[in-house]
Amino acid sequence: MKALRVDKKKLAVREVEKPAREDETLVRVLLSGICNTDLEIARGYASFKGTIGHEFVGVVEEAADASLIGQRVVGEINAGCGECELCSAGDPRHCSARTVLGIVGRDGAHAEFLKLPQKNLFKVPDMVLDEHAVFTEPLAAACGVLECVETKPTDRVAVIGDGKLGLLCAQVLALTGAQVVLIGKHAEKLRIAERRGIETVTTKSAAKRKREFDVVVEASGSPSGFAGALQLLRPRGVLVLKSTFEGKAEFVQAPLVVDEISIVGSRCGRFQPALDLLKKGAIDIDSLISEEYPLARGVYGMERAGKKGALKVFLRP
Amino acid sequence: MKALRVDKKKLAVREVEKPAREDETLVRVLLSGICNTDLEIARGYASFKGTIGHEFVGVVEEAADASLIGQRVVGEINAGCGECELCSAGDPRHCSARTVLGIVGRDGAHAEFLKLPQKNLFKVPDMVLDEHAVFTEPLAAACGVLECVETKPTDRVAVIGDGKLGLLCAQVLALTGAQVVLIGKHAEKLRIAERRGIETVTTKSAAKRKREFDVVVEASGSPSGFAGALQLLRPRGVLVLKSTFEGKAEFVQAPLVVDEISIVGSRCGRFQPALDLLKKGAIDIDSLISEEYPLARGVYGMERAGKKGALKVFLRP
Repeated sequence: MKALRVDKKKLAVREVEKPAREDETLVRVLLSGICNTDLEIARGYASFKGTIGHEFVGVVEEAADASLIGQRVVGEINAGCGECELCSAGDPRHCSARTVLGIVGRDGAHAEFLKLPQKNLFKVPDMVLDEHAVFTEPLAAACGVLECVETKPTDRVAVIGDGKLGLLCAQVLALTGAQVVLIGKHAEKLRIAERRGIETVTTKSAAKRKREFDVVVEASGSPSGFAGALQLLRPRGVLVLKSTFEGKAEFVQAPLVVDEISIVGSRCGRFQPALDLLKKGAIDIDSLISEEYPLARGVYGMERAGKKGALKVFLRP
Repeated sequence: MKALRVDKKKLAVREVEKPAREDETLVRVLLSGICNTDLEIARGYASFKGTIGHEFVGVVEEAADASLIGQRVVGEINAGCGECELCSAGDPRHCSARTVLGIVGRDGAHAEFLKLPQKNLFKVPDMVLDEHAVFTEPLAAACGVLECVETKPTDRVAVIGDGKLGLLCAQVLALTGAQVVLIGKHAEKLRIAERRGIETVTTKSAAKRKREFDVVVEASGSPSGFAGALQLLRPRGVLVLKSTFEGKAEFVQAPLVVDEISIVGSRCGRFQPALDLLKKGAIDIDSLISEEYPLARGVYGMERAGKKGALKVFLRP
């Protein structure tokens, strides 16, 4: 089968063997989405070698439970050991022995087939389009913000970054009734949020709004985002960090202590709330889709996804 | 009166006018304590000019309420505007118009007299010695950790830094029943914690205990403390930052997001819980006292307080 792989930092679509199901479930990929993390991995982040990609919708091809075969599914990307305290409590996201689809020790979704444990799979409701279902994983990551911070309708929330993740976070947070401001550099991307009734400001103007926000979500994917985010927070405010990237961030510690700021790292979220939002049509997904390429042109698709102005790029096997 | 002052970054004991009470309360200082923040301020931190010092015990000399006169008191160092939302809720620690004794816009405690609003003052129970009462402010700062993080008896807690603040934090946290480990560089200081039944390890050995702790309290006062502290935390662990210093800290953001770490800045704490602990004799304070000098020798006292191995240095007017 075809798969988009990173080997020795070189990115290429290669012919590889179709994965053997073993005690997991084999999924035929219908559509996969390119995430910024894929771009980071191609640059060396997480030192991953193998098939990249972790956003997908597919159809179950082989499974221990025959009733699953033919079902349309999306999949939670963290596969735990199944036995430790965390896995037993139903949350393998921090299992120390976990593999992560297309990120840690497990071939990913930019391929004709992938495998995952059966318990990682979620059936996709019929009315959810393939193109929307692919967004379950990044939308779950946006919903994950609400697992780390409770927002009240009176709260002023800033989301930094008008990329896909920032646009999803802003929409999810706006649904809670909080007063959300999206901060970004691209007028056409900010327009997507504006059409949902979300206030937007440019990065330059945001610098004037120091100490205004109760919660700031940093989703810019840039090392400079961190220090800028701190300046927007009121004393005792909360900064939620969503961006993973190679490299170091730098900050002046004293104001963080004096203002008693909290910072919370947030990575993956639960799939069910995201699927529920997709089913309700509560999130504008269509505006976040840029282009689609056949998997065979995966390297070009990655290049396109890295261009200024790009939003979601799909690969179709 | 004599006062230890920082002017144009020069530290000196000078003759200045005794403060006029106005609508506040005038306190004759019995004893003041040198905090590391005083040393930082003398180096330029907070750009403060005036009389430094914020740890003291004194006797009320002049007050609107005559019944206060002659009372032995300690004082909450943040003086709010009294009118904003935060002040109205009884917590001026983040009032944006606040002054802070010997730190922001208000002459401090290394002097013969100081003034503070009456509501900032707390009577000292008779059985608490002057030398212990001076520790109310730093002990309140240590108790402040419990305002930002709830520890369970099953929690593993590491305190980094065997200085005064670290030793106070370790003792306060050990009282909650949590499993506390104090990490430091000085055998003789670590012994103080060991005598209270607290496990200690050297900074070098601590580097082997990666991902072991639920909570880490960073009280080392060193920019390198931050990155080291992150490595000790288990996924979803909490880092409490207590150190204020000039300069930048640097860290790799991705692991913080991947492990969904929380970081909380913590500065001042409430005085009453600290006074209660002092009254109960629940904290070993005596071991934290190094030396005492007359206020007139304040510059030398500061020098001594900055020496390796020094703990609390008192100044007596």
